[in-house]
Amino acid sequence: MSLKKISRRSFIKQSTFVGASVALLPSKMSAVKDSSLKLRLGVIGTGLRGQWMTHLCMLRGDVDIRAICDIDHEMINATLNIIKKSGNKPPDIYKKNEHDFLNLVNRNDIDAVYIATPWEWHHEMAVAAMKQGKHVGVECPAALTVNDLWDLVNVSDKENKHCMLMENVCYRRDVMAVLNMVREGVFGELLHCQGGYQHDLRDVKFNDGKQPYGGGLEFNDKGYSESKWRTQHSINRNGDLYPTHGIGPIHTMLDINRGNRFVHMTSTASQSRGLNKYIIDQGGLNHRNAGIKFKLGDIVTSVIKCSNGQSVVLSHDTSSPRPYSLNFRVQGTEGLWMVDNNSIYIQGLSKEEHRWESDEDYLKQYDHPLWKKFNKNAAGSGHGGMDFFILNAFVEPLKRGLKPPLDVYDAASMSVISPLSEKSIKLGSAPVKFPDFTRGKWKKNKPIFGLNTDY
Amino acid sequence: MSLKKISRRSFIKQSTFVGASVALLPSKMSAVKDSSLKLRLGVIGTGLRGQWMTHLCMLRGDVDIRAICDIDHEMINATLNIIKKSGNKPPDIYKKNEHDFLNLVNRNDIDAVYIATPWEWHHEMAVAAMKQGKHVGVECPAALTVNDLWDLVNVSDKENKHCMLMENVCYRRDVMAVLNMVREGVFGELLHCQGGYQHDLRDVKFNDGKQPYGGGLEFNDKGYSESKWRTQHSINRNGDLYPTHGIGPIHTMLDINRGNRFVHMTSTASQSRGLNKYIIDQGGLNHRNAGIKFKLGDIVTSVIKCSNGQSVVLSHDTSSPRPYSLNFRVQGTEGLWMVDNNSIYIQGLSKEEHRWESDEDYLKQYDHPLWKKFNKNAAGSGHGGMDFFILNAFVEPLKRGLKPPLDVYDAASMSVISPLSEKSIKLGSAPVKFPDFTRGKWKKNKPIFGLNTDY
Repeated sequence: MSLKKISRRSFIKQSTFVGASVALLPSKMSAVKDSSLKLRLGVIGTGLRGQWMTHLCMLRGDVDIRAICDIDHEMINATLNIIKKSGNKPPDIYKKNEHDFLNLVNRNDIDAVYIATPWEWHHEMAVAAMKQGKHVGVECPAALTVNDLWDLVNVSDKENKHCMLMENVCYRRDVMAVLNMVREGVFGELLHCQGGYQHDLRDVKFNDGKQPYGGGLEFNDKGYSESKWRTQHSINRNGDLYPTHGIGPIHTMLDINRGNRFVHMTSTASQSRGLNKYIIDQGGLNHRNAGIKFKLGDIVTSVIKCSNGQSVVLSHDTSSPRPYSLNFRVQGTEGLWMVDNNSIYIQGLSKEEHRWESDEDYLKQYDHPLWKKFNKNAAGSGHGGMDFFILNAFVEPLKRGLKPPLDVYDAASMSVISPLSEKSIKLGSAPVKFPDFTRGKWKKNKPIFGLNTDY
Repeated sequence: MSLKKISRRSFIKQSTFVGASVALLPSKMSAVKDSSLKLRLGVIGTGLRGQWMTHLCMLRGDVDIRAICDIDHEMINATLNIIKKSGNKPPDIYKKNEHDFLNLVNRNDIDAVYIATPWEWHHEMAVAAMKQGKHVGVECPAALTVNDLWDLVNVSDKENKHCMLMENVCYRRDVMAVLNMVREGVFGELLHCQGGYQHDLRDVKFNDGKQPYGGGLEFNDKGYSESKWRTQHSINRNGDLYPTHGIGPIHTMLDINRGNRFVHMTSTASQSRGLNKYIIDQGGLNHRNAGIKFKLGDIVTSVIKCSNGQSVVLSHDTSSPRPYSLNFRVQGTEGLWMVDNNSIYIQGLSKEEHRWESDEDYLKQYDHPLWKKFNKNAAGSGHGGMDFFILNAFVEPLKRGLKPPLDVYDAASMSVISPLSEKSIKLGSAPVKFPDFTRGKWKKNKPIFGLNTDY
């Protein structure tokens, strides 16, 4: 089992290797005011995602990476090179075995760890770090089962350590502008939202064992990068395997855990065809992987009901040929925005009655203050600038001893969609209840995301 | 209770009264080859929809309307005028009371009845007609409860009389082209479809009692046209009240009742705000209708699972300000079409990988043979030509003693979505099973819709 990891692939397609893009970036991306404040960080998981975030940390100037951990020596070396090239002191290395991360989290000279390992390791690593007094930033999802999510919450509460989900799409420029519009009341009272992960991952799940995307039909031991571990989830599980990109922005717009909460959910999966078809189309009926059965339905649709009444539709669609889309729709009593046609309609504001208009002017008008402030810092940081923001939201508050804007309850209520969807599908689309990870605190907690001037 | 009815409003907005548009239409719209064949018809329900369909019947030249029925004398007179203006013999009139339709269906000189009354009368009238040996064309939905739909099916089977749902959207030009593409295998194996009725009906549900659309907040006895009966359904019921426009085309593409069937469904409703807000926004907090409680959730989302594996998402969204959209999406193992951005992506055909392209050329290339043949006849017939086709699909086979392309099982499996969605919502989004109205015949029945050269 390797610790290679990259959560999102587009940056690497644009800039084949990490070093190439360093030159394109501003030399200092930190939002720090007091230059004496630094966050002392350990990085667990130095696959492609870990390398990219390490690179962004180096650009900031306020993150001191003291230690890195992976079992893949090639990935460790690549990360070391990024740190060396930046002129920073080389970190200590933990690469002995799968549990060497326990030695990293045990150090006394780090404040926090960033975890970018395969999904199945997130819970164990986050809990170990918090028990050793470290704050945690964890890639999505935070854990894979309801019990493990409760464990994260309980450990975070007991140890008084933050556990932040590194969900970068919460900071996408368009959804931040729409969040702004929601808060300004442009949509009236929210009624219905949609989101989803609609991304053809076939060439992520299969490659030639030498490059991260495509070129072959290998995975697991013979694969490279994500195919080493991600593909197996499609064999073992039927559900919404990757809900947080779609639900993250909706979660903040609906004030989930802060005056509102997810109550129940149903999930329905289509038949499973795409991955098997891909193998046969590329490798023929006699390919040794042609007989593999994938449990994952090609299209999984979940519908969530909120305590304040709203409905949310979430899609997971990663095994079919299709354009990328996170499927966003935000609808209230005054109108709606839909990302797939880049359109909006607001009663009384839109020029023509019952006609879509381009969302362009609205997105400009309601551009979020954080984007206005940090636009230049974000440029080139990956995923349209979102990666700057999510890292900034992790580093800035922690180095000041403050709370990050996404907390352990948010990590849990977003990540729990996966196990709940698996359960609902197993039960023939039966509605399943969301645990209240806040234990009632959602009733009094106030929104914090996107309301700070610095992160 | 009035029998006024218009199922779809747009035609009247374009041509304030029916007479005005007659002049715009070709004088002969029948597809008939043998001019001696005529369908002898009774029309029950002469509201705006009934008048429009009467007008189209007159244009065809192969429909002999022998009798009309309504309890609203103004509507009866308007219909009489349409028939007189066309130069045809005036029909007999049944207008004594709510049950005078029983005398109409009892006549010996009619072959079929067309029913365009308020929803709650469809079942009773259709059953009475079939029991008197008449075929039936009924506007949507065919009935409102599972029991009444079984009754329709059982009576149709026993009396050997057809009961066709007059779902015109099945014949929309774009969806017919997409149906053609589905059958040509362009999308590969279908995985997932979407549809829905997303139509701001607030000014249909409330008017000034003198005009069909808006201008006031009246309904029931004080309302006009649809507000006389349709609004009350939003007070009494929470579910997908009008599923057939959205599901009709999907139903044919998925070969439902013909090799495939709907297995189960979940429905989730958002809170109910739009209708109450409309009254208060227009009439103030002290308006006498401001205190009315509407059960209907503003947005109702249903997810259907098919026996062949596909998932279907259906929306009902009629109480909010929004552009009209039937929400179509058709997705298979090779690509997908989506109506809201008029876009398509087909692996290997689309020019750029993972990029939407306009659906325009595809819709032209795969234009359905029926549209190529009848394009001129359909022009101006209402709802973009669909009304010509749905009437044609009713008249042509019946006058020749053949089966219409949408049968009583189709009427039942489309209409049953309403009561099933109400049940699912009542049970907290529990999955509810679809009855098999075909009693197993779906396994052997072959597709017929859109496969005939004449209708």
